[in-house]
Amino acid sequence: MSLLSDTLSAIPGADASACATAHLRLTQLTMPPWALGRLMDTAERLAAMTGQAKPRLERTAIAIFAGDHGVCAEGVSAFPAEVTPQMVANFVAGGAGINAIARISGASVLAVDVGVAGDLAALAGHYRDERIRAGTANLARGPAMTRDQAQRAIEAGIRTARDLCATADLLAAGDMGIGNTTPSSCITACLTGADPATVTGRGTGIDDAAHARKAQVVAHALALNRPDPGDGLDVLAKVGGLEIGAIAGFYLGCAAARKPVVLDGFIATAGALIAQALQPRVVDHLIAGHRSVEPGHRIALARLGLEPLLDLGLRLGEGTGAAMAFPLVQAAGRLLSDVATFGEAAVSGKPAG
Amino acid sequence: MSLLSDTLSAIPGADASACATAHLRLTQLTMPPWALGRLMDTAERLAAMTGQAKPRLERTAIAIFAGDHGVCAEGVSAFPAEVTPQMVANFVAGGAGINAIARISGASVLAVDVGVAGDLAALAGHYRDERIRAGTANLARGPAMTRDQAQRAIEAGIRTARDLCATADLLAAGDMGIGNTTPSSCITACLTGADPATVTGRGTGIDDAAHARKAQVVAHALALNRPDPGDGLDVLAKVGGLEIGAIAGFYLGCAAARKPVVLDGFIATAGALIAQALQPRVVDHLIAGHRSVEPGHRIALARLGLEPLLDLGLRLGEGTGAAMAFPLVQAAGRLLSDVATFGEAAVSGKPAG
Repeated sequence: MSLLSDTLSAIPGADASACATAHLRLTQLTMPPWALGRLMDTAERLAAMTGQAKPRLERTAIAIFAGDHGVCAEGVSAFPAEVTPQMVANFVAGGAGINAIARISGASVLAVDVGVAGDLAALAGHYRDERIRAGTANLARGPAMTRDQAQRAIEAGIRTARDLCATADLLAAGDMGIGNTTPSSCITACLTGADPATVTGRGTGIDDAAHARKAQVVAHALALNRPDPGDGLDVLAKVGGLEIGAIAGFYLGCAAARKPVVLDGFIATAGALIAQALQPRVVDHLIAGHRSVEPGHRIALARLGLEPLLDLGLRLGEGTGAAMAFPLVQAAGRLLSDVATFGEAAVSGKPAG
Repeated sequence: MSLLSDTLSAIPGADASACATAHLRLTQLTMPPWALGRLMDTAERLAAMTGQAKPRLERTAIAIFAGDHGVCAEGVSAFPAEVTPQMVANFVAGGAGINAIARISGASVLAVDVGVAGDLAALAGHYRDERIRAGTANLARGPAMTRDQAQRAIEAGIRTARDLCATADLLAAGDMGIGNTTPSSCITACLTGADPATVTGRGTGIDDAAHARKAQVVAHALALNRPDPGDGLDVLAKVGGLEIGAIAGFYLGCAAARKPVVLDGFIATAGALIAQALQPRVVDHLIAGHRSVEPGHRIALARLGLEPLLDLGLRLGEGTGAAMAFPLVQAAGRLLSDVATFGEAAVSGKPAG
């Protein structure tokens, strides 16, 4: 048995009993029936995820998985690859978008190197070193990584989740990797059956010519590598990314620990598709934080069957959309623990009939 | 000069200089151009509201204005009027939906009686007493209140805002008043020109027959009282509510103090329409927290020209939708104060051309 197979079998389904208890209480709260809409739906799911009728969600944590991408050689990104290690330094220094947004819920932020192609020695001790290789191979020319490396990337995410779950109740994974919307487009097309052109967006902001080239790269990579949509590890190895594999593993690890985890944008959700391919029950433990402007994100979320909480035109990644949704998920949890019922508060209910 | 007229003239417009400074910095942050979308739009507006290029928004506060409605005699609500004072007691005890949601940003919660038709003596010292009369008159039979009472309701909101602004940076008003979607529908129809039937919803959950009756009451009240859409005080007096007037005043008071204020749902937004009718510049200081399921809310927000941050199927009021948006607004503010620029963090920008 491997860490991966152990984790896959440890993931429980939704807890129907806790869900029913939570549902009953939500219908008795001092407010008109289901007057907090999607927040109440989320509260019910939180009970099902955690197995707790009154889940605690106070301690939040974010892991940002970083990796580089050989496919950048095809001119698919607006930014140079050197930005990946520079941004890891920015996360460590606390100056990135995710650091600012993490503060609204007091979330811890941990950068994890799974496959950066650059020297991070100056940051030693300030990030988690899980580097498997210095960036993927160019998926437009062959597999992005070996099957063994794909499994190790997932297991790096599982280990990170296990460690963070010891001190956090609500988690999210973020991504950093110049070029990583291209493997995310490949994964989404492969695992949803959508046309490569419909799932390929503009990432950090490429022009029309680069966008057309990127869609061709995605279609070509799928035709060349022929990933098997019934085999999540094969998809990750052939057209994925190291940080995307770690994100998939992070979701599996959180689900096995019964800790709710909030999805970020397109790259994170590509990781969730890989996790779903490996173990469909993982989806019971995922909350969609937001809908990104990347066209493939909507398609990937539909495949997971998840409706996002926020839709604010975000396209940054790093976990920012998930971290923005943390307070909403915490509010949903508080409905179960903090709000009085009609009986408890001696408030008159709606007359019958 | 009155408190109302003094406040109306003290409200500044948007600060173009602070807005431009904020805009420039937002374009230089270590992320692709405008990659945090609506959050960056909000950050820019926060600078324009406060006159600060790096606004502080840490301390949050909510005032819930409560009042009763004579129009309940027409059978327009699913709940009995006794619920209004019972819910004020629930706010004071900390057991209502707004108390739970306020905790996600550490917001203070203050209940304010502007016109409850019930005894609150048992709560003395735990709420703010600004009662003007014990509920409005039935607006289906004549004016809801006198013009003098309408002005006093607005001034109660202004005073409350002044006091809370001394110790809070970001504020919201909530409402409690069984029957108050009916005056809100009247105000929205009058001030937007929309058909009464299109702005009348199901409130706390009335059936088809009650909904048809409610739409008739709204149309009848407008035909009977003939409020002047060019005179906000006249609209409030004839077809409004005491807590709606106080909410309007609260927005005016916050705007005069240059403190950003987040709108809640349909009733709060009806209050904003009254405030806008009195002083159009107040809208520069308002942020729309969410879009409610009440059909009139979309129409009222369009009249204000505001796009809401959240759309979660809420229909509770109490300030809950605004309090849920507080962390998002705080995150927007943190983009200006906490995120490094490309230059500060030594991160490579997007190559020109």
